[in-house]
Amino acid sequence: MMDVQVFRLPMSGPDDVSALANLIDQGTVNPQEICAIIAQTEGDGYARGYSALSFELMISERTGLSRTEIAKRIPMLMIGLTGGLMSPHYTVFSRKQVDAPSKGEKRLALGIKTTRVLLPEEYGTKTHVLLVAEAVKAAMVEAGIDDVNDVKCVEVKCPNLTAARIQDAKSRGKAVVSTNFADAGAKSKGASALGVALALGEISEDAVTDQAICSNWNLFSKVASTSAGNEQVACKVILIGNSKTAVSAFKAGCGVMSDTLDLSGAFSAFKDAGLVFNGEIPQDQRDKIATVFINAGADALGSIRGRRTTMKSDYLAGYQGIFAKAVINAIVGALIGDTMILASAGYEHQGPLGANLVAVIAKAD
Amino acid sequence: MMDVQVFRLPMSGPDDVSALANLIDQGTVNPQEICAIIAQTEGDGYARGYSALSFELMISERTGLSRTEIAKRIPMLMIGLTGGLMSPHYTVFSRKQVDAPSKGEKRLALGIKTTRVLLPEEYGTKTHVLLVAEAVKAAMVEAGIDDVNDVKCVEVKCPNLTAARIQDAKSRGKAVVSTNFADAGAKSKGASALGVALALGEISEDAVTDQAICSNWNLFSKVASTSAGNEQVACKVILIGNSKTAVSAFKAGCGVMSDTLDLSGAFSAFKDAGLVFNGEIPQDQRDKIATVFINAGADALGSIRGRRTTMKSDYLAGYQGIFAKAVINAIVGALIGDTMILASAGYEHQGPLGANLVAVIAKAD
Amino acid sequence: MMDVQVFRLPMSGPDDVSALANLIDQGTVNPQEICAIIAQTEGDGYARGYSALSFELMISERTGLSRTEIAKRIPMLMIGLTGGLMSPHYTVFSRKQVDAPSKGEKRLALGIKTTRVLLPEEYGTKTHVLLVAEAVKAAMVEAGIDDVNDVKCVEVKCPNLTAARIQDAKSRGKAVVSTNFADAGAKSKGASALGVALALGEISEDAVTDQAICSNWNLFSKVASTSAGNEQVACKVILIGNSKTAVSAFKAGCGVMSDTLDLSGAFSAFKDAGLVFNGEIPQDQRDKIATVFINAGADALGSIRGRRTTMKSDYLAGYQGIFAKAVINAIVGALIGDTMILASAGYEHQGPLGANLVAVIAKAD
Amino acid sequence: MMDVQVFRLPMSGPDDVSALANLIDQGTVNPQEICAIIAQTEGDGYARGYSALSFELMISERTGLSRTEIAKRIPMLMIGLTGGLMSPHYTVFSRKQVDAPSKGEKRLALGIKTTRVLLPEEYGTKTHVLLVAEAVKAAMVEAGIDDVNDVKCVEVKCPNLTAARIQDAKSRGKAVVSTNFADAGAKSKGASALGVALALGEISEDAVTDQAICSNWNLFSKVASTSAGNEQVACKVILIGNSKTAVSAFKAGCGVMSDTLDLSGAFSAFKDAGLVFNGEIPQDQRDKIATVFINAGADALGSIRGRRTTMKSDYLAGYQGIFAKAVINAIVGALIGDTMILASAGYEHQGPLGANLVAVIAKAD
Repeated sequence: MMDVQVFRLPMSGPDDVSALANLIDQGTVNPQEICAIIAQTEGDGYARGYSALSFELMISERTGLSRTEIAKRIPMLMIGLTGGLMSPHYTVFSRKQVDAPSKGEKRLALGIKTTRVLLPEEYGTKTHVLLVAEAVKAAMVEAGIDDVNDVKCVEVKCPNLTAARIQDAKSRGKAVVSTNFADAGAKSKGASALGVALALGEISEDAVTDQAICSNWNLFSKVASTSAGNEQVACKVILIGNSKTAVSAFKAGCGVMSDTLDLSGAFSAFKDAGLVFNGEIPQDQRDKIATVFINAGADALGSIRGRRTTMKSDYLAGYQGIFAKAVINAIVGALIGDTMILASAGYEHQGPLGANLVAVIAKAD
Repeated sequence: MMDVQVFRLPMSGPDDVSALANLIDQGTVNPQEICAIIAQTEGDGYARGYSALSFELMISERTGLSRTEIAKRIPMLMIGLTGGLMSPHYTVFSRKQVDAPSKGEKRLALGIKTTRVLLPEEYGTKTHVLLVAEAVKAAMVEAGIDDVNDVKCVEVKCPNLTAARIQDAKSRGKAVVSTNFADAGAKSKGASALGVALALGEISEDAVTDQAICSNWNLFSKVASTSAGNEQVACKVILIGNSKTAVSAFKAGCGVMSDTLDLSGAFSAFKDAGLVFNGEIPQDQRDKIATVFINAGADALGSIRGRRTTMKSDYLAGYQGIFAKAVINAIVGALIGDTMILASAGYEHQGPLGANLVAVIAKAD
Repeated sequence: MMDVQVFRLPMSGPDDVSALANLIDQGTVNPQEICAIIAQTEGDGYARGYSALSFELMISERTGLSRTEIAKRIPMLMIGLTGGLMSPHYTVFSRKQVDAPSKGEKRLALGIKTTRVLLPEEYGTKTHVLLVAEAVKAAMVEAGIDDVNDVKCVEVKCPNLTAARIQDAKSRGKAVVSTNFADAGAKSKGASALGVALALGEISEDAVTDQAICSNWNLFSKVASTSAGNEQVACKVILIGNSKTAVSAFKAGCGVMSDTLDLSGAFSAFKDAGLVFNGEIPQDQRDKIATVFINAGADALGSIRGRRTTMKSDYLAGYQGIFAKAVINAIVGALIGDTMILASAGYEHQGPLGANLVAVIAKAD
Repeated sequence: MMDVQVFRLPMSGPDDVSALANLIDQGTVNPQEICAIIAQTEGDGYARGYSALSFELMISERTGLSRTEIAKRIPMLMIGLTGGLMSPHYTVFSRKQVDAPSKGEKRLALGIKTTRVLLPEEYGTKTHVLLVAEAVKAAMVEAGIDDVNDVKCVEVKCPNLTAARIQDAKSRGKAVVSTNFADAGAKSKGASALGVALALGEISEDAVTDQAICSNWNLFSKVASTSAGNEQVACKVILIGNSKTAVSAFKAGCGVMSDTLDLSGAFSAFKDAGLVFNGEIPQDQRDKIATVFINAGADALGSIRGRRTTMKSDYLAGYQGIFAKAVINAIVGALIGDTMILASAGYEHQGPLGANLVAVIAKAD
């Protein structure tokens, strides 16, 4: 049986990995069992790499494995750029096989897979979608999940086009989806989300065409959260759900906020993770929350419930993703009295336009 | 008896005063009776002046009064800088004397007063505090309010130091509170807030010293919202509360959110304004809300409930006031399903550090 | 004969039109003769409208003409967003017919024309190019210029797509060039620049296709500076050059800096305007400078002379146009000891990629 | 005799240390001889730490020394935040003792010293000044420089106050210079600059009082460039000058630009470093330039030569240091056709207010 543990830890800067180091040094975490780290880093985009390097170094020192080996073994999803009340932190997942009786209900399980290396001309295309779908299915198998309804969150990190990659494609006579980096990045994220949707049966393969990507917004996954990075060459998939072959003390849940003000959607995610409440979430139930991941979508639109916002038009519009994350962090944070919630921006086929996807991991025992 | 009407109207840009123009042209609003306009303008600081000029021009054309006369008669509080889900809009107050029977309960009343012109060396000092306190008391009399508990919100616009004003003080051998504009502005706002606190008996006059301003954070008002502008030479006070001599269809309420996550504080404001609900606010009660003014305080601190935020340290720290407004707008907006809420940043003696002050005006009939 | 006067005046804020008001009140400027105002305004985009409104009001009061009439008579080109050493100011052009002998050399002349109203689906297309070309030719005629080499600077203000305009096109079954506002705006500016190039014989009509706009960067004008605004519905052309039918005390010149470091290109513009110097520009020659307009192009590229810059990649990349303007203002400002230079960003067919176009107006007498 | 080598190398990101790695791997640079690295890093403040960590790791791997040992041996001055045409890069200094005849003229020499650890309450005080002065004198001795006129540039990295350090001081009953981090940081940098000025005889010890720091702007050094960092606990001094005991192929020079437009001040620095030119700097002389360090001061003032700028007032005022660096980089870059110039912001006693200090290292052989 698979036993997964979850540790949510604060960081005082992108390079502060001391909280995890302490847990390792105290014997609470076995560094060999760490299987994924998902961090909310402050600072700009470079701070993500700084943070990843800091984790690699620290775990390398404590395991005797090389940094390269650590980077290969432990997918690190660094979600950068914070604002408002967002509190920098990271969630560490550890995983091991144990000989234990079933808990009598499905429990937290993880599946982690990486696609083959994509060619630059494949980024943001149907090929990209199919490769991610294949990886998601393999991750479900690894997690011991056979019902798609038990998949609560799929984080995908995919590659971005760079000048060098465009050049590479050109040198082979191939065209990329767009030479505009922002457009190409959106399509890469969109294709990843559609890959999740396809694997989980949320959309049909017929509907997936190169043209539909970042164009037909009726296609989406309700559990996908995707981000793109220049450092990626393949797509890394971290699938989170509940499995009957898992004996973790934790359980995952999810819910969709149809727009950023939809509190009932947020509540449904906490209930799906096993919290019991009626109206306000009481302290004893809040205490069960292990971690919360939100895919924010407020930056998809320039209005909400008929009210115009300045999200996409004002002089700070370049930071709209940060504002989208800050507002959903604040709203959900107010429901649980805690702003150490991961928020990731990205509306490309990650839920309907303007929606927020909420995943919750909570103690079940 | 005083009859006050309240109109909350959307704007498509800082210069868009068409919604009010339409109400005037339709005969719904008598421009002679407009007594105050409080706007949430997008854009940067200059957009505030642009908006005020646009209102002056439009009302001047419709009343035949000069722009200068309009500027003198109608205090215009332009709260600039929006972010997140904040929706640009303005609230127009009109006021007239009517011969009507009491409503049997206290109703919305306004008092509007301006202090004498302050000398630059008085900005942010005890003198400033005393002058504002005097104006607040006079505004209470004008509003027909004799119980300080009936004062629900006091908006104060006070002067900022400028290079020319520092020079003026120097030329007369006088020192200003600070030659750092940010510090001086904070003290001006702080002194205004303490003036409100003093008038309402929230603090004693003994406690008010030059030294205490922006230093002793135990002194504060729970209903003051203050802002400073280079264009001001005196302090303008708009006092909002309930009076037995008022027959408005509206009622005001207020509440303190002890920190930005304190939903119970927000709920208390809506209840104080007469809304009836238990847990979630139902649609029929939401429909009664005429306008909401929040004084945001999240930018007072770099942490919340033990969680570190990047509010005061990240590369966007220069915009911390916008983030403070965006997060409280989102949180309270989610409670009422509407983000057309005014949020003003400023923590200087406006509630305890980190608190948010919520004022609500709702239909009573 | 046409007599053109040029006044470059400082402003202390977007609404400060006092310097021009003073010149009018002193009798130095006849407000009836003002034919164009080109301003470098600080603040954000809204400050442009604020400034234009302030000019309209002030001139309306001093001429007795309505604001609408002033807006129609005097094209106002407000170039927003300043940074670095850029100094907010405006250049006022006044024009009148006089009975005077020729100066024996060509002198400063202006031609001002507006195209017909463009349909949203025409923005950024070949139709747009042709309409601007026609207006430029008409402006040459008005200015009394028959040799294209005498045209030194053509400022064009053209319309931007808006949500409403896209909707309008759709409702008539028409497609716009792009539903991405940034792309559409670039194409509108690009089409305007190609219109100038076509009129001046810098490119052939064959080369102008819808597809070439913002794609074939080998097509460009060396004297066009274009900007787009949501408030525009047609293209306004202000053509500046020298004419034998003009008797102005001023003369115009221009030059191309092949990249932002190309000082020789800047020097050539000052020489073309009649300044005499060898190496450094001496004070007596600097004193002749009436105004300088630069079209900045540094934001076209992410490198210069083989050195990578962070212009297009860093967290401030959203403000790359401001940086492009700030650096060219500083470089040319250092050559003349004055930063009251107008810089406008925009590389779409306005010179070769990365070039800066410099126009200088100097006293000739 | 001391032989110093200088390598200026491009970086494609804060973590890109490949150019130096290549030089080490090729045998061009002996990693044991590296004595200082001064980098211009892009990204935000955290990128400085990321870059330093990347250098430490790379050099550690190539020397077999621990990262801690590398950090101790090689002072790394990471100047963060780029804009405009600034090109991320780093300058590596290596130093060794050689048995060689004098070059017949003074040549490039370095002195590197660190003060004792400062107590938080000492930051920004006269004690701080005296400690830096002592370190500067020791660095002169190490560099073999006995004439203060041979000191061309002194880079100082000093500590910043942090919340923890203020707490530490308080716990011992001590007060810090300011609990406002910005003010305290300015005083730390100012004290460091005054330390340089004192050591070089530019000011008298009498003039140095706690009160004078960041207040009496008549006190300054013409060669100091200081920056403060949260990671520092002592002051690191890198002194650059020319010595008769040095046999480097390079020579240093310096000059003061009295304001940002003062080209003659910039030219004087290049001449002081041995370049020969009259007016424009010809290509063969440009080829001799090894590296350029500028301390930018444009952000000290809100005007230049009587022209008001928006440097300190506009909505981007929070980034004024970046603009100050971008404009001086552009201006000096235009003089030498190269923007790979290091610019550091900081006006606190680093030259007169508004001045820019230019240091040049050029090939002498």
